[in-house]
Order: sequence, then structure tokens, then C-alpha cells
Amino acid sequence: MSAESFDANEFRRALGSFATGVTIITTRDTDGVAAGLTVNSFNSVSLNPPLVLWSLSTGSQSLPAFQSAPHWAVHVLAADQHHLSGRFATRGKDKFAGLETDAGIGAVPLLHGCMARFQCRTAFQYEGGDHVIFIGEVLSFDYKNAAPLVFHGGRYAHATVRDPLDLQRAASAGTGIIDDDFLGTQLSRNHFRFFGQLRRALAELQLSEEDFYLLAALADQPGASEAELGESLAGIVDVDARAVSASLMRRGWIQATSSDQNRYELTAAGRAMAVRVANLARALEQQILLRLNPGEAAALKSLLARLQNVIDPAARALWQEKSAAEEIAPAARQ
Amino acid sequence: MSAESFDANEFRRALGSFATGVTIITTRDTDGVAAGLTVNSFNSVSLNPPLVLWSLSTGSQSLPAFQSAPHWAVHVLAADQHHLSGRFATRGKDKFAGLETDAGIGAVPLLHGCMARFQCRTAFQYEGGDHVIFIGEVLSFDYKNAAPLVFHGGRYAHATVRDPLDLQRAASAGTGIIDDDFLGTQLSRNHFRFFGQLRRALAELQLSEEDFYLLAALADQPGASEAELGESLAGIVDVDARAVSASLMRRGWIQATSSDQNRYELTAAGRAMAVRVANLARALEQQILLRLNPGEAAALKSLLARLQNVIDPAARALWQEKSAAEEIAPAARQ
Repeated sequence: MSAESFDANEFRRALGSFATGVTIITTRDTDGVAAGLTVNSFNSVSLNPPLVLWSLSTGSQSLPAFQSAPHWAVHVLAADQHHLSGRFATRGKDKFAGLETDAGIGAVPLLHGCMARFQCRTAFQYEGGDHVIFIGEVLSFDYKNAAPLVFHGGRYAHATVRDPLDLQRAASAGTGIIDDDFLGTQLSRNHFRFFGQLRRALAELQLSEEDFYLLAALADQPGASEAELGESLAGIVDVDARAVSASLMRRGWIQATSSDQNRYELTAAGRAMAVRVANLARALEQQILLRLNPGEAAALKSLLARLQNVIDPAARALWQEKSAAEEIAPAARQ
Repeated sequence: MSAESFDANEFRRALGSFATGVTIITTRDTDGVAAGLTVNSFNSVSLNPPLVLWSLSTGSQSLPAFQSAPHWAVHVLAADQHHLSGRFATRGKDKFAGLETDAGIGAVPLLHGCMARFQCRTAFQYEGGDHVIFIGEVLSFDYKNAAPLVFHGGRYAHATVRDPLDLQRAASAGTGIIDDDFLGTQLSRNHFRFFGQLRRALAELQLSEEDFYLLAALADQPGASEAELGESLAGIVDVDARAVSASLMRRGWIQATSSDQNRYELTAAGRAMAVRVANLARALEQQILLRLNPGEAAALKSLLARLQNVIDPAARALWQEKSAAEEIAPAARQ
């Protein structure tokens, strides 16, 4: 594609292939009014002196504020701050309403919960076509370890560290008959290790994995029949719903409904037990997920949900997925 | 941290919290010699005219080439191009040796296999402390859909699209007893769906899942005893190694070793069958992974390997992991 035939959307899409973090840049104008916007054209420039840069559209409502302000602050957003990104990418409302801020150098509003913050003095303003390039000297900064909010191809993304072992696993794939890199092996091993730990915890309550899932299913589907329960659990555990429900009934945790002897519901004792095991299972899950790096748990769950849908799109979900909410993406650049 | 006490490493670490793609920027100097280096300080500036920028250290050996060259090209790297990133981040060798390149505008060398390429004319060079900021007017570009190479916190990262459903799943977590967002449910469901499909394929060869794994294990561990095989497979399938091996022996696929009647090895027919089922399993895996977006398969496998290690660090791996090879990371900025 040559310059003469430049299509703005195509160019934007090509630029979008370069992944970036997401920042919010704030300042206070000469009237004392706070201004701020979502920006992904941020980058580092110099270590000594410490300089950073970003670009602002000449059409932006915030341009006069930034052109006259001697100070501004860059906030690098963490993965859980997508709502802030959306808020500051949207024109024409009070972006700071209800937000807790600190006053930084030059009374610039500083946001909370960010991965990194750089408080800057404007060093230079350079011409950059339909944008102005702001170069800031960093006067002060702070940061924390967290998962970053990432923007790629016009959408938010999860970023997770690439383990050098990934390359090895991939390189050695195919040298054995079925090896560590085989998805089936990975899924089996994770599944059995996870339930190996859960089983130990359930054993203390004298519950099996099958009991556990049947309690959970009945808590969500009171009045389900054995056939319905069996169908619901078919994709989760190999379970004979009839045998399990008989065992749960003996222990006084489930009972036939008063209206239909072939349908079941939890008793009060069963509900109490279901809550107890759910808490236990979530505690185990938390314990495991906390051993991962920031952001890895969210990315893993997202990818497992994706995988589940592509392995067997026809499989019935135990709990139906709701329709997708629109997520507000920041403008690619402002 | 205030400017007076700036620690260069701390500042670099704070800057590293902003995720970026990775680019290689190439040019040809006035003597006709190709130059190029790995850069992550790239960003877009303007749509009309189309401008991009990046920063180059005043200490870089490549500075004279870029200061005098009228043209240069930006290559946004794809996830599988980390080797190129390492190569162009390393000083003092012929970075282009053995690489296939095309001649772009101004005879600038263009690399292959990139996510996006921008061919530029130098529009401005601006002062930026210990760096020079190059602003290029984009004369031509091309791009393709792929997973990006991402750099964050001083390391390469996987980037995968955030599904709006992620937020919903996370938000609805805890409203049921155990729900779709519960890791145990996700692992079970993926495991059973995957093997549901594999089982169908194995059934055509009259093989069970247990047969499949025992064949694979014996192919990798010839001469293993039943106890060793049972132990190896304990984390993968619930299997009675004795029953499975008896069944495989009846079918003429495994035999006792000549030196020890309690140890087993594949027969020629068994090896042929093992290769056949391995090919079948890999074909199924490929079929499924191809339904994911670019980059998701690599990120998923990486995260499942991580999870496996943190769920139960003491669990024995069927195939031992090798020591991690050092991965060469690009300099944070050049």
C-alpha cells in the first residue's frame, strides 16, 4: 500500500499491530480545572535526563490545558483498570467525578491503583502532523508489580510472561510419541492434580468429587430430575447421578420435592453443606491461583473458557453463559 | 522517589511497566551498508500526514547511519520472531548475515514474516536528552493478522485478546455455589470434552484412553515395569497398569523384555500402533488449536504448564523437564 492510496482505517489497523500499554495522562489547567485523557502513544525517551513522551491530537479538547500547563502526570494502568481507561477515553463528561485523587506536583491530580505513575514537567513540545508531541522531564515516579492493561489490534489484551521453557517444550514437541506439550496431557495432568488436592479436602467432610458436584448442581438447579442432573454433569465428572443422589439422600442432604417424587432439592442441612464445600473449593482455588504471577490467573481462565467453546461447541454448558456485554475500548490514540 | 534520588535501574523498571510491542528498525547508510536494531520505543504520532516515531541512543553505533539516511523501515515483530529480536539487540555482529531481505524504498532492507512494516522518510529529528527522536513520514506499509511479540517488565510476554465475557464470568463468580468461573469446573470440562473427542477417534482403532497413554509411556520408557508405568500415569489417567498391559499384550503390541520378565517394551506392531495414535492425537490437537486466535494456543500451553507446576509442585512429571535455556531479551531501549 503506497502513500497515495492510504486508507486511514487500514493505516490505523497496521499501527494497531504494535501492542502498547494504556495510560491516563492528567493535568490541571491555568483555571485550576483538572483535565485528563486515555493515551497509548506514551513511551520512554531518555534515561539521563529522565524523559518520556506522548502525543496529543491537535483536535483534542484537552490540548489548551496541556499546552499551557507546566506539569502533567502519566498513569500506566493495571489490568483491572479497564473501567478507568474507558472513562477517560470518553469525551464530554466529568472524568474525575467520584474518583479519589491526590494532588501531585503542580496540583496535578494523581489517580490511585496504577502500575506506575510519572510526574513530569513539560520539557519540549514538538510538531507531529495532526498531533503535538509532549516531552516531559520526570520529576518523580512510583510503581508496583501488577499485570498490565494492554491494547492490541483495537482491543484490550491479557499479557503474561513468556517462560523460556515454552520454547523448549514447543521445540521438543514431537520427539516423544505424546509429550508434555500435548494438550491432552496438560489438561489431564492439571485436572487430576487439582482434584487430587480437592479430594483430600473433601475427604475430611466425607464427600466424594461426585457428591461435591451434585450438591453444587442441585444448589443451582433446585427441583432437577436425576436425568437432568446426569446430563448437566456429563461434561464435568463421570458420575452415576442415581447412585450419588441415593447416597446424598441417606445422609439427609437432599430430598424429593413435595410436588414431584422424581425431582430433588437440597435440605437445609444440604444447603449448609453445599456452602461449606463451595467455600472450601474456592479457598483451594485461591491458594493455587495466588501462586501464579499477576495477570496469569485471569488470562488462564479466559483461555480455558475459549478452549472449552472451541473443543466442542455443541456441548451443553451446565450454567448457561449470558450474552456478552459490550466493553468500551479506548480510542486507539487521542 | 524524587528526581534527585533517581536510580537508573528503578527508573528503567518503572518504565518497563508500560507494555510495548517489539520492532526492528533498518536503514542503509551512505556507504550502502545495512544497519538495524531492536527498538521498543516506537509509537504512532499522526494520521494525516501519517507519522510514526522512535528514539535512538546518542551512544548507539547506528546513530550516524540513521542521522544521514533519508529512509528507514519499522518492522513490528510477530510472536514467533523473538530470535530476530535477540539478533538485532546484540551489538557487533553482522545482524543481516543469512537473512533474506527485500530492498525497500531507498534500498532499505526489509525483513520477512513481520506483523507490520512501515517504510518511512525521515521527517524530523528532535532532541530527547540522551536519545534522538526520529519522526518518520510513512510512505508505504503492509501488515498481517498474527500474534504480537510483546515486551513487559524486562521480559517477553504473550498477549491474548481479553474477551468481554471474562469480565462477566468474573463478576458472576460466587453467585452460584460453584460456577463456570471455578477453575475446577473449567479443568474438568476441558479435560472431558477433549478426551470425548479423542475417545471417538481411538474407538475406531479399538483403543481406550488408557491403552493410548500406556502405549505412549512405553514408547518413551522402553523396559519400564508395571509399577513404574502406573506411577508415571498416576497424574494423567486413572489406570490399572496391570489390566491395561495384559490387554495390550494379548493384542501383540507389548511384550516382556528378554532380560526381565517384569519389564515391558513395545513390539514392532506396538510401535507402529503408537505412532499411528500419536499422529491421530496430534491431528485432533491441531484441529482444536487452529480454532483459537493467533497466539492463544502458545499462551494457553504456557499457562497450563505454569499451573501444573503450582498446583502440586511435588508431583512427579512423566517426562522430566529440562533446565531452562536462557532467552535473550532485547535491551529495554537502544
